[in-house]
Amino acid sequence: MIVFSGDLDKVLAAFIIANGAAAMDTPVTMFFTFWGLNALRRPESVKVKKSLIESMFGWMMPKGPDKLTLSKMNMGGMGTMMMKQVMRQKNVYSLPRLMESAKEQGVRIVVCTMSMDVMGIGAEELIDGVEYGGVASFLAAANESKTSLFI
Amino acid sequence: MIVFSGDLDKVLAAFIIANGAAAMDTPVTMFFTFWGLNALRRPESVKVKKSLIESMFGWMMPKGPDKLTLSKMNMGGMGTMMMKQVMRQKNVYSLPRLMESAKEQGVRIVVCTMSMDVMGIGAEELIDGVEYGGVASFLAAANESKTSLFI
Amino acid sequence: MIVFSGDLDKVLAAFIIANGAAAMDTPVTMFFTFWGLNALRRPESVKVKKSLIESMFGWMMPKGPDKLTLSKMNMGGMGTMMMKQVMRQKNVYSLPRLMESAKEQGVRIVVCTMSMDVMGIGAEELIDGVEYGGVASFLAAANESKTSLFI
Repeated sequence: MIVFSGDLDKVLAAFIIANGAAAMDTPVTMFFTFWGLNALRRPESVKVKKSLIESMFGWMMPKGPDKLTLSKMNMGGMGTMMMKQVMRQKNVYSLPRLMESAKEQGVRIVVCTMSMDVMGIGAEELIDGVEYGGVASFLAAANESKTSLFI
Repeated sequence: MIVFSGDLDKVLAAFIIANGAAAMDTPVTMFFTFWGLNALRRPESVKVKKSLIESMFGWMMPKGPDKLTLSKMNMGGMGTMMMKQVMRQKNVYSLPRLMESAKEQGVRIVVCTMSMDVMGIGAEELIDGVEYGGVASFLAAANESKTSLFI
Repeated sequence: MIVFSGDLDKVLAAFIIANGAAAMDTPVTMFFTFWGLNALRRPESVKVKKSLIESMFGWMMPKGPDKLTLSKMNMGGMGTMMMKQVMRQKNVYSLPRLMESAKEQGVRIVVCTMSMDVMGIGAEELIDGVEYGGVASFLAAANESKTSLFI
């Protein structure tokens, strides 16, 4: 599974599928690239030396799952807030909870090193328990998988 | 095939692929989730008891295939109108016609029950001839399929 | 692989995966449809007789890989410019270079004829070395592939 998007709704869908598959004992590899990296950023500021452009990217992009917004109907954050509230009311796991559960179930999370390089995101800015790899690492996982999705 | 998007262009692509595959006698399951549900809504208003947030979601989201808009170049609806006109001129099936044809060819349409719950959409608001299921139902279909797409 | 999107970031991802797979001697077919066609347009103006709507579509849509923009943080072109600059600094291949490399490695590029028809794009407006086909051509390739992605 490639997680290219950093939209809350798409990352949610990715982790719901990943958890579902893991619960059925299917090994899952999630390969995070481009905007998907934002879902794996630590919420706190981490001191890293960056170029001006890298600092700007880092500053403008959401820091971690709690900061992601909906791809549609975000409406300045109101839609995202409403969606999260509804999910709580309906007892649907939040994104941070789904991510924890995925890790507990042994879902592999691989971060695209080229995206880290281009977006100027260092390993110390990302959550623990992830692996690092390039496109070859995605292709190897895809080759062993029955189902591949680009999200 | 997961239909996550509710954009006219992406739902069109999904049904063109589904019809093409069905025409070649390949069994097709389309799993509608999140915004994709909008493509399956009945155009008319259906009286259902809803919470305030559910009513707002219901009111703001497009009701059925005729209300979907393009993901790009919608330009306040003008781009979508132009696209539909061109499709008519070129004798390309419209989305409602493609949906009918998919049903006639036996394409399975499964609606994500969790999305219905979160978005507050009841079964009586959706078109006939659909099935209901959770992520396990998608995974089961994916497991029997040679090709899976996230649209 | 279906390339539906015409966003710079998604088309980049598509070609990075295609080149990676080709480098591992995996045959790759990229099927370009809808907005994806924009990545294959020649940069120069080509005289073709078009209807008014077709001319408008042609005029509004980006002409070739150098004109594509990011799906997020484009900011009137500034984000896209910054991304390209960073890619140069980090020695990441640009999109035109990746496209050339894909061709050299024998990646098949198939253009959706229905999209050409609907968007009013003629073969003389597209780059050389591409094939033309309908949805059946995608389905045939998908049927022979271990991995299919909708990008």
